[in-house]
Amino acid sequence: MKIAVLGTGMVGRAIAGKLANQGHQVTMGTRDPNATKSRSEPDQMGNPPFPVWGKENPEVKLAKFNEAVLGADMVVNATNGAGSLDALHAAGNLDGKVILDVSNPLDFSKGMPPQLFVSNSESLAERIQNTFPAAKVVKSLNTTNAYLMVDPKQLANGEHTVFVSGNDAAAKGKVSELLRGFGWTDVIDLGDITTARGPEMWLPLWLRIWGSTQSPMFNLKIVRAAK
Amino acid sequence: MKIAVLGTGMVGRAIAGKLANQGHQVTMGTRDPNATKSRSEPDQMGNPPFPVWGKENPEVKLAKFNEAVLGADMVVNATNGAGSLDALHAAGNLDGKVILDVSNPLDFSKGMPPQLFVSNSESLAERIQNTFPAAKVVKSLNTTNAYLMVDPKQLANGEHTVFVSGNDAAAKGKVSELLRGFGWTDVIDLGDITTARGPEMWLPLWLRIWGSTQSPMFNLKIVRAAK
Repeated sequence: MKIAVLGTGMVGRAIAGKLANQGHQVTMGTRDPNATKSRSEPDQMGNPPFPVWGKENPEVKLAKFNEAVLGADMVVNATNGAGSLDALHAAGNLDGKVILDVSNPLDFSKGMPPQLFVSNSESLAERIQNTFPAAKVVKSLNTTNAYLMVDPKQLANGEHTVFVSGNDAAAKGKVSELLRGFGWTDVIDLGDITTARGPEMWLPLWLRIWGSTQSPMFNLKIVRAAK
Repeated sequence: MKIAVLGTGMVGRAIAGKLANQGHQVTMGTRDPNATKSRSEPDQMGNPPFPVWGKENPEVKLAKFNEAVLGADMVVNATNGAGSLDALHAAGNLDGKVILDVSNPLDFSKGMPPQLFVSNSESLAERIQNTFPAAKVVKSLNTTNAYLMVDPKQLANGEHTVFVSGNDAAAKGKVSELLRGFGWTDVIDLGDITTARGPEMWLPLWLRIWGSTQSPMFNLKIVRAAK
């Protein structure tokens, strides 16, 4: 597949790198590729600057948001939640495209741990779907850290859970296939895009479990009764 | 221990019955015991009227909120979230008491599935703690259904997780001991009472997993990397 990954942070890098390794044709989208390419300092989170990663992943292209999306079969929204709508607007025409939305509506303005800037009666995924009604938004992967997203088997041999939410069954099918390719075996389809409120509202608990266990290398497994 | 369980619905019954079976001296608290005792119809959820349960659990007393709490070492808030503050006000002096808060701030006024009437920047547990500053509020058990709360081993031999949040370490210790008595083996201490926002905001995901899997007999397990 031809896939655009919007966002050049840790999540975008993890997903773009994995997809390229799997043989997909991947272009990462960013606002200003020249600025991204000229960075030489680690970011606020201490991650190495993009060029360090770019050198190790030469098969991944870098382009402006709208150039990355041109002709792409799937668009991965790996931008930070607060900037997601702006980034998707900059990407241009998204009609008919599958948007895999892995972002979280984190609000850092109230201190740590972050709150959510949309929750309860709405979700960021719904905002994206409502803003781009002809796109096919699928929420997934936002419930875990970037390393587990693309390599779940590194934890308990992958014995844990990921969710998909979206209005379009075929789009969810495509995303689920991608997830299985990453190593996910337990994919729960929660229902339409409004169900994305659930996995987005998981974040506050995720953040506090991280605080308590002092490691982001965990995930939830939904343990069910045997059928 | 002498324990007051506020609320006579399924959650209150499950917890009161279990505690009484374990030899604790249990009094359930309700607004109007005579009204509760004279019910003869199932409730809105289809649960049998209280007297049916009461006959099977004769060792559990029923009293007004304030009478139930008199002399109790621990108070369990198993009322519905929307009525919790009123019920606790009716219970009288809660100074120094451990309040195990198992309620959820569910708001059914916007249709199904319910939303939360407090979340993100606050939690119901914090409201309770702030309203009764001399009480020792511990949030726990609200993350699962009533049957699993008191008998986690009926699912996957108890291989799943429960949380505690609260400002008072000794109170969390007492609650954790009680949880272990119920069969819980993985008890994660999330931190102070503000961390209750996490497990309360889990409910929207819980509700949608229930909708998707068509059974409430599940729980989350926090899968961590081996140390």
